[in-house]
Amino acid sequence: MKHVLSILVNNHPGVMSHVSGLFTRRAYNIDSIAVGVTEDPEISSMTIVVKGDASVVEQVKKQLLKLPDVIKVQDIAYNESITRELVLIIVESNDKTRLEIISICDVFKGKIVDMTDSALMIEFSGNARQVNAIVQMLKKFGIKEMARTGQIALPYQSSI
Amino acid sequence: MKHVLSILVNNHPGVMSHVSGLFTRRAYNIDSIAVGVTEDPEISSMTIVVKGDASVVEQVKKQLLKLPDVIKVQDIAYNESITRELVLIIVESNDKTRLEIISICDVFKGKIVDMTDSALMIEFSGNARQVNAIVQMLKKFGIKEMARTGQIALPYQSSI
Repeated sequence: MKHVLSILVNNHPGVMSHVSGLFTRRAYNIDSIAVGVTEDPEISSMTIVVKGDASVVEQVKKQLLKLPDVIKVQDIAYNESITRELVLIIVESNDKTRLEIISICDVFKGKIVDMTDSALMIEFSGNARQVNAIVQMLKKFGIKEMARTGQIALPYQSSI
Repeated sequence: MKHVLSILVNNHPGVMSHVSGLFTRRAYNIDSIAVGVTEDPEISSMTIVVKGDASVVEQVKKQLLKLPDVIKVQDIAYNESITRELVLIIVESNDKTRLEIISICDVFKGKIVDMTDSALMIEFSGNARQVNAIVQMLKKFGIKEMARTGQIALPYQSSI
């Protein structure tokens, strides 16, 4: 069972290792983590995706709130939220494969952000399943390099 | 001076806090951090943006490589790479402001991913400057919630 924890923290050195240390001591393995700035330069937001039981996640939430630099913890239900991640992929290409790669990129509504004789760089954002799908489709051409953000999530405003 | 460190690590519990602990002990403040999966489920990739002198970053790189679960560290020059981050923003909206918000989103080539009577959720990816710009433009309508990934970066394949 996946849980998305959205955490607001004071932007102090050390807060990252306190928070990730908490998950380590509980023998959780963090699926993905993203740390970004907020409108307030003093405050960062962390989005952590963990697999675990609801009751244990509730305990971790309480533990997090005891840390001095943690301001707020929100447990967002994975199936009631929009989750997105971003990936940059450098794919090997040549005169024979270039058009096919471009058309795969079009289907996923990705963007080509750099191009040479021998490579294309693709930017794509979507949910984890979609990111896995485009990576899978591009694999056969040869992936030279890839960088992937962790997942972020916000709750749906519209109810089902 | 900003540096982008792209780090491959074994996906073990604890590696996150080892790596972020290293930056803490050196009194660096991490500007942004993103942790994502790679094609190999045993290996995660971390992208860390830090401000600092080139020589000190070189030292940190050496220290990182001494950590047992760190496989590879790449120092990508900030001005010779494509950097991107992703943001989800819930903006308050009503019958009077909705069209203006949609047109701002169009200018930035963002996507609207959820809509109710009182709010719009916008997905946008770009470099840090562009993300700051769209956030700035949406601020006056009221930002209800925002989640931002850390930055990822890959080196340009085409040279200038």
